[in-house]
Amino acid sequence: MGNVFGRILRVSTYGESHGVAVGCIIDGLPAGLVVDLQDIQAELDRRRPGQNKLTTQRKEADRVEILSGVFRGAATGTPLALEVRNGDQRSGDYTEMERLYRPSHADRAYDLKYGFRDHRGGGRSSVRESIGRVAAGALAKRLLREACGTRILAWVESVETIGSQIEPSQVTLEAVEASLVRCPDPVASAAMEEAILRARGDGDSVGGVVRLRIEHPPVGIGEPVFDRLEAELAKAMLSIPATKGFEIGSGFAGTRLRGSVHNDPLRAGASGVIQTKNDSGGVQGGISVGEPIDARIAFKPTATITAAQETVDQDGHDAVLSARGRHDPCVVARAVPIVEAMAALVLADAYLLQRSRAQMFAPPPPDSRENP
Amino acid sequence: MGNVFGRILRVSTYGESHGVAVGCIIDGLPAGLVVDLQDIQAELDRRRPGQNKLTTQRKEADRVEILSGVFRGAATGTPLALEVRNGDQRSGDYTEMERLYRPSHADRAYDLKYGFRDHRGGGRSSVRESIGRVAAGALAKRLLREACGTRILAWVESVETIGSQIEPSQVTLEAVEASLVRCPDPVASAAMEEAILRARGDGDSVGGVVRLRIEHPPVGIGEPVFDRLEAELAKAMLSIPATKGFEIGSGFAGTRLRGSVHNDPLRAGASGVIQTKNDSGGVQGGISVGEPIDARIAFKPTATITAAQETVDQDGHDAVLSARGRHDPCVVARAVPIVEAMAALVLADAYLLQRSRAQMFAPPPPDSRENP
Amino acid sequence: MGNVFGRILRVSTYGESHGVAVGCIIDGLPAGLVVDLQDIQAELDRRRPGQNKLTTQRKEADRVEILSGVFRGAATGTPLALEVRNGDQRSGDYTEMERLYRPSHADRAYDLKYGFRDHRGGGRSSVRESIGRVAAGALAKRLLREACGTRILAWVESVETIGSQIEPSQVTLEAVEASLVRCPDPVASAAMEEAILRARGDGDSVGGVVRLRIEHPPVGIGEPVFDRLEAELAKAMLSIPATKGFEIGSGFAGTRLRGSVHNDPLRAGASGVIQTKNDSGGVQGGISVGEPIDARIAFKPTATITAAQETVDQDGHDAVLSARGRHDPCVVARAVPIVEAMAALVLADAYLLQRSRAQMFAPPPPDSRENP
Amino acid sequence: MGNVFGRILRVSTYGESHGVAVGCIIDGLPAGLVVDLQDIQAELDRRRPGQNKLTTQRKEADRVEILSGVFRGAATGTPLALEVRNGDQRSGDYTEMERLYRPSHADRAYDLKYGFRDHRGGGRSSVRESIGRVAAGALAKRLLREACGTRILAWVESVETIGSQIEPSQVTLEAVEASLVRCPDPVASAAMEEAILRARGDGDSVGGVVRLRIEHPPVGIGEPVFDRLEAELAKAMLSIPATKGFEIGSGFAGTRLRGSVHNDPLRAGASGVIQTKNDSGGVQGGISVGEPIDARIAFKPTATITAAQETVDQDGHDAVLSARGRHDPCVVARAVPIVEAMAALVLADAYLLQRSRAQMFAPPPPDSRENP
Repeated sequence: MGNVFGRILRVSTYGESHGVAVGCIIDGLPAGLVVDLQDIQAELDRRRPGQNKLTTQRKEADRVEILSGVFRGAATGTPLALEVRNGDQRSGDYTEMERLYRPSHADRAYDLKYGFRDHRGGGRSSVRESIGRVAAGALAKRLLREACGTRILAWVESVETIGSQIEPSQVTLEAVEASLVRCPDPVASAAMEEAILRARGDGDSVGGVVRLRIEHPPVGIGEPVFDRLEAELAKAMLSIPATKGFEIGSGFAGTRLRGSVHNDPLRAGASGVIQTKNDSGGVQGGISVGEPIDARIAFKPTATITAAQETVDQDGHDAVLSARGRHDPCVVARAVPIVEAMAALVLADAYLLQRSRAQMFAPPPPDSRENP
Repeated sequence: MGNVFGRILRVSTYGESHGVAVGCIIDGLPAGLVVDLQDIQAELDRRRPGQNKLTTQRKEADRVEILSGVFRGAATGTPLALEVRNGDQRSGDYTEMERLYRPSHADRAYDLKYGFRDHRGGGRSSVRESIGRVAAGALAKRLLREACGTRILAWVESVETIGSQIEPSQVTLEAVEASLVRCPDPVASAAMEEAILRARGDGDSVGGVVRLRIEHPPVGIGEPVFDRLEAELAKAMLSIPATKGFEIGSGFAGTRLRGSVHNDPLRAGASGVIQTKNDSGGVQGGISVGEPIDARIAFKPTATITAAQETVDQDGHDAVLSARGRHDPCVVARAVPIVEAMAALVLADAYLLQRSRAQMFAPPPPDSRENP
Repeated sequence: MGNVFGRILRVSTYGESHGVAVGCIIDGLPAGLVVDLQDIQAELDRRRPGQNKLTTQRKEADRVEILSGVFRGAATGTPLALEVRNGDQRSGDYTEMERLYRPSHADRAYDLKYGFRDHRGGGRSSVRESIGRVAAGALAKRLLREACGTRILAWVESVETIGSQIEPSQVTLEAVEASLVRCPDPVASAAMEEAILRARGDGDSVGGVVRLRIEHPPVGIGEPVFDRLEAELAKAMLSIPATKGFEIGSGFAGTRLRGSVHNDPLRAGASGVIQTKNDSGGVQGGISVGEPIDARIAFKPTATITAAQETVDQDGHDAVLSARGRHDPCVVARAVPIVEAMAALVLADAYLLQRSRAQMFAPPPPDSRENP
Repeated sequence: MGNVFGRILRVSTYGESHGVAVGCIIDGLPAGLVVDLQDIQAELDRRRPGQNKLTTQRKEADRVEILSGVFRGAATGTPLALEVRNGDQRSGDYTEMERLYRPSHADRAYDLKYGFRDHRGGGRSSVRESIGRVAAGALAKRLLREACGTRILAWVESVETIGSQIEPSQVTLEAVEASLVRCPDPVASAAMEEAILRARGDGDSVGGVVRLRIEHPPVGIGEPVFDRLEAELAKAMLSIPATKGFEIGSGFAGTRLRGSVHNDPLRAGASGVIQTKNDSGGVQGGISVGEPIDARIAFKPTATITAAQETVDQDGHDAVLSARGRHDPCVVARAVPIVEAMAALVLADAYLLQRSRAQMFAPPPPDSRENP
C-alpha cells in the first residue's frame, strides 16, 4: 500500500536501492501528449547522485527506458511504463546496517512494520525510490506547460543556518542550475557549499529549506473540503523522505499577523482582477486563484552520518554505529527536482479532475428560487 | 469531489452554513465498536459557536442525531450516518457578500471554480462544514482508545505574537478545556484572550498555532512511500480551513541543525527500545515507531473582518468591504477539536490499513537466499 | 467499507430497513446542474413498496428531503445530501429472524462477517437500502440527458418461466409504467402478474430477468483495462440485492456463435459509421461506441418466503422457519428503477472521467516516428 | 485510467502487444509471503501463446523477471514489480489494421476514445495485456492458499455448441491441463478441439464458457452494498477481453425457479452448519459463507477472423477486411489462467480488507439497549 499516487493521473512506483531496477507506471495521461525521452532524462540527471562534490559518490547513469504507452512520439492514453536499471551497488557497505539501526532513519520503522527489511542501501526508504516520481513528474510538467502554460520551479532557500536573498519572481531555472546547491543567490550558494563540505568533513550532515514557486497554475483546481489544493501539496511534499514541514503563502509567520494586514487586497487590473500581494500563496478556500503558488518545504539533516552514534541492534541491545556507505551530507540540492516533480503530479491530477466537470452547465440566474 | 476522506474508514461529509443540515456518513467502522451519542455530542460542544465571549455569537444547539449503523449501542459494520440540523441562520447578514468578494476568503475562489456559489454564511467554505469531521472523529478517537490506548490531544500554542510555556507531556484535557482559548498555560491564556478581544474591538482578527500530541499511537502505521503517516497528517491538517502550515517533530527549526544533533538516539530500556529525545515527532521513514506523535499547525488570521478592506465586486470593479455577520476574531480555540478529529481519522484509517496485512506471515530467516 | 460508489461522481449511501432514515451524499456533481426535487421523488415513487397488489404491503411515503448542495435550484458543486425518514416499521414481525437464519438470505452472512447484525427487517441487506441509489441515480440520469441526450430505460423481460415479446427499440417509459410488473408486453405482463400472485398464494416467490437499454450513451467512455464499461456495469448490477447474473449484448447465447456471425459489420451511413446489428451491446474493447447499450440482469426468487423451510438457528441447531413480515413475492418490478439508477451512476461517472482528458491534445500525424 | 486494480492489494499493469515489455506492479502484498519465481512462470506458461496447435502461433518465451519487492525469497511489503520483455513481433502483419477497423474489435473504440491508437497487434487491447494480471494472480493465489487453504480452479465448460459433463467438485488441475482446450471431460474436449480446428480452417472463430470454482474461500469477505463479493467478481471477469456475461450460482437459470426450490437449506452438520445445495454459488448478501464459489463467464468468438468481413476504414468509407496476423480461433483455453488470476486478485483483496476490521470488538450482548 501507499505506492500509488493520484486520482486521475495515477503513478505507481517501485524499486529499492539495491534491487534490479526502479521505475513507475503512469496511468491516465491524456492521449496525444508529446512524450520526449530527453525531457524525462534531463530531470533524472538533475536528481542523479554523483553530480558533483556535494553529493554521494555513488555512480549511476540512471538511463531511463520507456516500455509502453507511447506511439509515434505521443502518449496513447494507455499506461506508460518507465524503467531505470540499477547499476553501481555495493551491498557490502551496508552489512552493518542489517544489525544496527540508524537513529532517526527508516531502518527500525520498517522492521516494526513489516517484520523484516531489505537493509541494503536503505531498500525502499532510499532516495533512489524517487526516480519513479521524477520521471513521472517530467511528463506532468510537460502536460501543464502545454495545456496551461504553467511553470514549476523550486530552489534551495536555506541550508543549516545560512539563508538567502532571493526575489522569487526573478528566479530562473538557469540560475538555479548554475549553483551546486541549487540556490540562485550566488553569495548564499557559496556559503551553503562550504557548510555542506564542512559537515561532511565532520562526518556529519545538514538540513535546509526548499522553496517552491508555480507560475500560471491552472485556475479553479483543488477540491474542497478534504482534497484542497494545499492539502494535496502538503501530502505530496511530506511524502518525500527527510521532510518535516510544509508552509504555503505566509505559513507559520502569518500566524503572527492580523487579518487586516494578512488579507490580500483585490483590485481591478488591466486584464482582470489582481491581488496586490500574495500571502495566500496562490490558494484560497483550497482552490487555486491564478496567483503564483508559493510554498516552502523543510528537510531535516540526513540521518545517515559517519560520526559515532548511540543506537541499538536488532535484538534491542545498546550499540554504537559509525555508518559507512556513500551518503549525501545534505539532501536539499537533489530534493529540488523531486519537489518540482511532486508539485507537477499534484497539479496535473487536480487539473484533470477539475476538467472533468468544468463548464458543463451554466450557473442559475441570480433571481432564481432559493434552495428548496 | 473532495468530500470523502480515508481509505478503509471512509468519511463523507456534507452541508453548508445556511443549508438544512450538516453531517456525515462513516463507512468502515469495525462492528462492535461502542457508539455513545454523548461522546459525539461532547466533541461537537467543544466545536460549537457561541461558547464564550471569544467566539462568534451565532447560537447553535448542534444536537447530533444518529440515523443508521448502530444497533444495541454498537456499530454494526454498516454505514453510520450522523446529522445536525442547522438552526440560527441570518442570511440577511450575508447579502453584501453576494456581490463583494472578501479578500483572502474562499468567495472568489468558489466562483472561479464552480461558476457560482451559495454565498450565505460562506456556504461550504464555512467552518460549519467541520461538524461532520468532528462527529466522525469522536468515533475514531474511541476506536483508537479502545484498540490501542491512544490519546489524542491538541491545544493552542500561540495566538498572534503571544507564545506559551508548555511541557507537552504534562498537558491534560482538563487544563486545555479550562482555558477559553484552549491554551493550558494560564498566563499565556489570559494574554491571548486579551489579544483576541482587542482584535475584535478593532474590527480585526488574529491567527495562531495549534499543537497536536498523540500518545501511544499504534506502532507500524503509515504506508510508504506516498501515504507516509506524516504525509497523511499534513494533508488532513491542511484540509482544515485557514491553515497555512504543518510541522512534525523538529519541523522548520530542525532544518538548522546538524544530523549528529538532530538524530534521536536509541537506547535499550527496561521495557524495550527507547528514544532519548523525539525530534522525529514519532515517525521515521513515514511510519509510527511508538513515540508520541508531535505536530504543529499554522492558522492564519480569520479572513472575514469588519474593518474596511479594498476588494472587487463580482463584475471585477473596485469596491470597499466592511463585512457584517458574526465571525470568530480567532479560529484557533475552536480549531482544537477539529485538529484532534482529523488526527483521529488519519490514525484510525492507517491503523486499520496496517491491520489488514499485519502478522500474516513470518519473516524469512536471515540466512535464506538473497533476492533473485 | 463498500458503501461508496464511483470515482468522480461518488455516492455514499446509508440506512437500514428499521433505522431512523436512509439516504445518500452525492459528491462530484457538476455545478449548475438543475436539481428538481420532483425528478428525484418520481424515481423514488417507482421504487416504493405498497405501490400495488404485487408488492410488499409495507406502507412508506418515502418523501425525500434535500439537505445541502443546492442553491437557486441548481447543484453548487458541493456535496448534495438526500434523506428519506423511515416510517412504517413493524419490528415485531422480525423477532423470529433474530434467532433463525433465512436460507439463501444475508442473515447468516452478516453474522459471519460482522459478529452480529441488526435483524429488524433485514437491516442493511433490505432492499430499502436502494433508496439512496435511486435518489442519486435520478440526478445522474438528468446529468446524462442534459449533457448527452442519453435515455436509460429498463423493464422486466421475464418472470419465472414466462418470457415476453418485446422489440427493445420500441419500448417507452409509459409502456413500462403501464404494467404492474413493468413488462411492456401486455400479454406477458398479465401472465407474469398471475404467476406472482400464484406464488404469493403458495407462500412462495419467483425470480425474473430485467432488460436494460441505454440509447445515445456518451461515446468513448469506459476505461480499459480493468474499468471497462461493461465491467463497471456488471459490478453495479451485481451490487443490487438478489442478482445472480449479468449479460451484455449477445451474452451467454453469443458463446454458441461463430465470429463471422457474431461480429457486428460496419457500414458508411448518412451521418457517420453505423453497425448493421448490435451483438456487442454497445461496447467494444470496454468502450462505448455510440450504439445502444443493451444488457440483461438475472434476479433470483426472493429468499424470504412464508412456506416452511429447513434452516438452523444462531446456535447452529436444526430448525424450521416460516417467515413472517411483509415481503415482495417477486422483486423484478421494483428492481427496474434500481437498475436504471445504477446504470445512470456508472455512465455519468465514466462520462466525467472521460471528459477529464478528452480532446486535450491532437493525435500525432501518421508519419511521425515510431515508438522509441 | 483503469489500469489499477484492487483496494488494498493494488495491481497496476502496463504494456502493449508490440511494445518493449508488459508487466505489473503489485502493491500491498503482506511482508513475508514466499515469492517463488517458478509459481509465477508456471502460470505465465499456461497463458502463453503457441502452446499447441489450437492457439496462435506467435512464439513468445514470456520469461518473467522480478525487479523489486523481494528479499530472501519473501515479499518485503514494498511494491513488487514483474516484467516480461516482448519477443516475437511482426508489426508488418498489422499494417492493414491501421486503416481498416476490425468489426466488433477494440480498433474503432480506441480511436473514438483516444483520438489515435497503436494498431500494432491490437496494442493495449491485445490479450498480451493479461500477462501482468496472470503474474500478479500467481502471488494472490499463493497468499490465499497459505493463509486460508483456498483453491482456485477454472476450466472450459463449453465451446461453440459443445457442452460437457463435469462434476465440479471432482475437477483437478491435472485433468484440466491434460486437455488442450482445458476441458476436463475428455469426450467433450476432443469434440471442442475439432470444432476449433474446423473454425480455423474456415477462417472463422468460436466462443465458449469458462467455469470458475473456488474451494475453501475465506469466510465473511465481500463488502455490501456496492462492493459485494459477486459484484467484484463480475467486474473482474468482465474486465477480461472478449467477455459478454457473468453468472454466479444459479445465474440466469435460477430466475426460472421458485424461492422454495432455489433457497439453499441449512442443516446442522458434524463440523458446523452446512448447506444441502449451493444455488447461491457461495455468496449470500454479497458475502462469502464458506461454501465453494461457483461462477460462469461467457466469452464471445474471437473478433479477428481471416474470412472477409464488411467494415469501414478510418475515414468512414466502406471496405472489406480479411484480417491477417496470428490469432487464436478460440480464446477460452488461454482464458482459463486469466480467469483464475482475476478471481485470486479479487479474493485476496477482499480478504485483506475484511482482515482490517475483523474481530476487533466483541458484539454487544443481545439484551443491550436498542438503537438510540
